[in-house]
Amino acid sequence: MQQRLNDFSTYLRQHSIDAAFINSPENVFYLTGFLTDPHERLLGLLVFPDADPIVVLPGMEAGQIREAGWSFEVIGYADHEDPWALVKKSLNEKGIPPVQKVGIEKQVLTFGRSESLLQICDQPQVIDVEDQLNEMRVVKDEHEVSIMREAAELADFGVQVGVEALEEGIMEMEVLAQIEYELKKKGVAEMSFSTMVLFGEKSGQPHGNPEDRKLKPGDFVLFDLGVVWKGYTSDITRTFAFQSISEEQRQMYEKVREALESSLALSKPGTRIGDLDQAARDVIDKAGYGKLFPHRIGHGLGINVHEFPSMSHLNNGVLKEGMTYTIEPGIYDPSIGGVRLEEDVLITKDGYETLTKTPTELRIIK
Amino acid sequence: MQQRLNDFSTYLRQHSIDAAFINSPENVFYLTGFLTDPHERLLGLLVFPDADPIVVLPGMEAGQIREAGWSFEVIGYADHEDPWALVKKSLNEKGIPPVQKVGIEKQVLTFGRSESLLQICDQPQVIDVEDQLNEMRVVKDEHEVSIMREAAELADFGVQVGVEALEEGIMEMEVLAQIEYELKKKGVAEMSFSTMVLFGEKSGQPHGNPEDRKLKPGDFVLFDLGVVWKGYTSDITRTFAFQSISEEQRQMYEKVREALESSLALSKPGTRIGDLDQAARDVIDKAGYGKLFPHRIGHGLGINVHEFPSMSHLNNGVLKEGMTYTIEPGIYDPSIGGVRLEEDVLITKDGYETLTKTPTELRIIK
Repeated sequence: MQQRLNDFSTYLRQHSIDAAFINSPENVFYLTGFLTDPHERLLGLLVFPDADPIVVLPGMEAGQIREAGWSFEVIGYADHEDPWALVKKSLNEKGIPPVQKVGIEKQVLTFGRSESLLQICDQPQVIDVEDQLNEMRVVKDEHEVSIMREAAELADFGVQVGVEALEEGIMEMEVLAQIEYELKKKGVAEMSFSTMVLFGEKSGQPHGNPEDRKLKPGDFVLFDLGVVWKGYTSDITRTFAFQSISEEQRQMYEKVREALESSLALSKPGTRIGDLDQAARDVIDKAGYGKLFPHRIGHGLGINVHEFPSMSHLNNGVLKEGMTYTIEPGIYDPSIGGVRLEEDVLITKDGYETLTKTPTELRIIK
Repeated sequence: MQQRLNDFSTYLRQHSIDAAFINSPENVFYLTGFLTDPHERLLGLLVFPDADPIVVLPGMEAGQIREAGWSFEVIGYADHEDPWALVKKSLNEKGIPPVQKVGIEKQVLTFGRSESLLQICDQPQVIDVEDQLNEMRVVKDEHEVSIMREAAELADFGVQVGVEALEEGIMEMEVLAQIEYELKKKGVAEMSFSTMVLFGEKSGQPHGNPEDRKLKPGDFVLFDLGVVWKGYTSDITRTFAFQSISEEQRQMYEKVREALESSLALSKPGTRIGDLDQAARDVIDKAGYGKLFPHRIGHGLGINVHEFPSMSHLNNGVLKEGMTYTIEPGIYDPSIGGVRLEEDVLITKDGYETLTKTPTELRIIK
């Protein structure tokens, strides 16, 4: 954490930014090691080019950030106090020079909080520092990768539990409940997003909600799930056929798998990110399913389940060793159902490794 | 929904606001009937004083909002498109007059999105309309109350499952898993916040995380949980003693219960909201535990698990029929543990009803 804080302070100094106010729980976690969800209450980390950082958070969490190892100033406020007034007081007491440029996360800080921040700093110029934090976070260190491996292993386990639960007549929600129950027993406190278990035509909705649809022979079964583990996430999708499969379904499945493989084949340092999306899209377009693949190929993965970079065909960035992201092509036919396959990918020195290990070969659950 | 949209348009007209951009999934749900979580993608509802509203959302959800009954314009965008450009085009095509005042939710809209919005509207004046939406949402109609009753009943059921799971040596996480498993089987797709099951000294942390602490005789057991049900939330806390209780623990419990009762006794139309907090605080202060009650007495409850109003002693608002909120006094001793009791309260014509029904009398689980 100290190195990350130092790096960020150096960035501020180089860009003549007098203070940065970091408001997202994820970036606060990245820079402090303390993970918390303050709901609607204010959580903030002030970082300066040449002064020690300050954390402001609900008073009842002040002890917890100390336990997590934070040794700098903590402003813990009670519900009836104005945290911004306390921050202003602290800035004055520490003799922080006037803030002429302030760094914020433009896509996180609310308009209302920006008004408070700008007011206590006498209306400084606003600079977005989110890209810099995204850049810092995009390459994972060994410790982060080791946690993400565990998170992906738990996601694999979730799919395995789901597959074992399948039987004719079971409802989507029942399978979902079994998956999350077994994961909770392994210590998973939170899923990284609402778990999807979709049967038959429901799998044809890219963002469908599990309900009381009962499993029938010939259905596609789509699982999309992930866990939050020690502050990091996983995200896996697998699609299975239940008992039987039509030729049309088989064709869809094989094209999605081919699209996945074509993106994975390009996954190594130096590849243009947009090319991964394009490669998968080309496979699906050529097979005549282009209109049934309405989303980007994937997204960065780390502390957030959706983080930088966005793996769209427009992204001109390049892959670097230590990056982690998803590849998740899909074909969705509202009448037949849908297929999506999603891997969590780690870029290695000269290629890639999938952190998710569940095989992607077509499997017909008997 | 039509009535709510009409009421909101009338408000805009009365305040000379030319357009409102509603960005929170909760307010979009309240005004459209369509509940979705677009993650980092843009979801917005434009409401005008004298023109039909427009929804902008990810293209893959366009079909779903139609299914939910939305009959006005939908701008569905693909990942590679700029939704703001599409919105600007639509405003031009519809002949919407120049926007000189724009309404936003200041505590929701990010600084970055406000920049985009202000740009396509030629830098209008910004007005916060969140208070108006909070005011509209604070009084629940019969349909909303009927859903919240179901949500509270599910929360009661969760506590019951937790109590039945208690046995010496079981871990907090195991009890949590059983609660959520049984709720999932009843169709609950999402808890309203991370479920808390805390044993012994862990219950002394107002925001503790369930882990592998094992249950021992003499422990307090604190459950704090709720569900999201048809777009509405519940939130219950109960504390039990396991097998035995010390005199000191009993004293803490009885004072919390007395504090709860003193707040409930004031719950009726016309009461100043801050008085509910003060009444509970007076009981706890007088018993010498004042410093061990570090949070407000409660919060509004509805589509959000924490919503308007904040039930702090500073709130000069008054209770109205149809309001729903929590009352949740607590005493937290880091060495002994903590007690919190939380009810979901509905203000009726001349008093109150608790939607949560689990008894609050001290119960020692044998």
